[in-house]
Amino acid sequence: MLTDVFVHEKAICESRSVGPGTRVWAFAHVMEDARVGRGCNVGEGCFIEAGAVIGDHCTIKNGVKVWNGVTLEDHVFLGPDAVLTNDFLPRSRRQREPRPTRLATGASVGANATIVCGVTVGRWAMVGAGAVVTRDVPDHALVYGNPARQHGWVCACAEPMEPGRRCPCGRLYELRQGEAAEAGE
Amino acid sequence: MLTDVFVHEKAICESRSVGPGTRVWAFAHVMEDARVGRGCNVGEGCFIEAGAVIGDHCTIKNGVKVWNGVTLEDHVFLGPDAVLTNDFLPRSRRQREPRPTRLATGASVGANATIVCGVTVGRWAMVGAGAVVTRDVPDHALVYGNPARQHGWVCACAEPMEPGRRCPCGRLYELRQGEAAEAGE
Amino acid sequence: MLTDVFVHEKAICESRSVGPGTRVWAFAHVMEDARVGRGCNVGEGCFIEAGAVIGDHCTIKNGVKVWNGVTLEDHVFLGPDAVLTNDFLPRSRRQREPRPTRLATGASVGANATIVCGVTVGRWAMVGAGAVVTRDVPDHALVYGNPARQHGWVCACAEPMEPGRRCPCGRLYELRQGEAAEAGE
Repeated sequence: MLTDVFVHEKAICESRSVGPGTRVWAFAHVMEDARVGRGCNVGEGCFIEAGAVIGDHCTIKNGVKVWNGVTLEDHVFLGPDAVLTNDFLPRSRRQREPRPTRLATGASVGANATIVCGVTVGRWAMVGAGAVVTRDVPDHALVYGNPARQHGWVCACAEPMEPGRRCPCGRLYELRQGEAAEAGE
Repeated sequence: MLTDVFVHEKAICESRSVGPGTRVWAFAHVMEDARVGRGCNVGEGCFIEAGAVIGDHCTIKNGVKVWNGVTLEDHVFLGPDAVLTNDFLPRSRRQREPRPTRLATGASVGANATIVCGVTVGRWAMVGAGAVVTRDVPDHALVYGNPARQHGWVCACAEPMEPGRRCPCGRLYELRQGEAAEAGE
Repeated sequence: MLTDVFVHEKAICESRSVGPGTRVWAFAHVMEDARVGRGCNVGEGCFIEAGAVIGDHCTIKNGVKVWNGVTLEDHVFLGPDAVLTNDFLPRSRRQREPRPTRLATGASVGANATIVCGVTVGRWAMVGAGAVVTRDVPDHALVYGNPARQHGWVCACAEPMEPGRRCPCGRLYELRQGEAAEAGE
């Protein structure tokens, strides 16, 4: 039995690995052998496939499908109708090993963005609405467009920031090998 | 009780503010405190959130989600899987005031287009399929691409037109401050 | 009665023209007068409209809507949330003759791609994830971007190939009038 999990009466939740405080809304489907952490929100019409791994405190807005081969770490945000994949060169009725995709802690993916499989979206990175991500996104990068290009940096608080200049929220970042990291960490 | 509203037996309609002649199709969900006018079509799998406001005679094709903060005036067309938003810089498990979006009378949004929150799509404007709209769209403008740019003008009848030249449908437009308006109105 | 068709208990299948071995998953809806061939997979949340024609052995991933006016030949792959259309210049509450779209045998459409109505996607062509297809796609062409442009060729086996050089899978193609065709066929 799942403890302290809300499952809407029109949802299907077959997994026994869903953490406390998580809510699964109408017309969503969490398959057996999908893993969902605690305190997550699985929006209406979502599909969490067997083999998908979702961390704690993630927000998965309406209509998102999380496939086998996709890993969400903690505090990940997937906007409405964001699209993930697990087969790089698909053909009908051909089953292949999924190509893995990783969304690191705190990453946000905008509405209707597409994440081509095989990439890593870095910690607290932000993918703009409608973007098509075809390569790795550095930690704290802001990317958008088709194909997605980097246009700046964002703080964990979500506001744009510049490494070396303190964000009004108090955090300070520095550049390390092409990624932004909190200074002193 | 709703009067003269069709709700498919597999839909959820919790709102008491839905106008006569409106139809809500299977796997759609209209939340309590969502307002939907008369003569609308809410397609299969749509989600109308509490706080959303939809005028009369709108067509909302399958899979569209209309969020709190979004206003559709009358005769708006939202193509299949068109995507709206209400949080400009989202993070997981953070609730913010929605940034409002307005779709003016007669506007059409193509299939799978993305409307970034905060914009107004003008009267009888047309957003092409797959476009990503990041700024206001003038009345009667035709926009497409990612990001969406203006590529011409469209008549209320939907055909491309040029201000100053009468559309075969009989309407004549003139330019006023960067927007097209019917001459003499 | 349908013979040897799996229909999930939360799906709606009203068509009597669905071939053996086809599966229809939860929250999907196949309308009466939609035609679906044998050995197809109609994913969760899909919608197959009356008038749509789907061949044999097609894979239609979750969330795809196939409209009246759309024809899928055999072995077609539609990735998750791929979007089709049938009205080029839509307005609310206006019904028009659908503009036909054809997906030829073996074509693959990537996740969240948009196919503007009126085009033909050629045999074994591949449309990249998030692409917006606005014109015909040659047989075996690889296209992506918004608008979609050709960036190479793909083999029936799905791997990139060059006409005149044998694919590791054994197939050899030659160019004929701007399309790739198997040599000797």
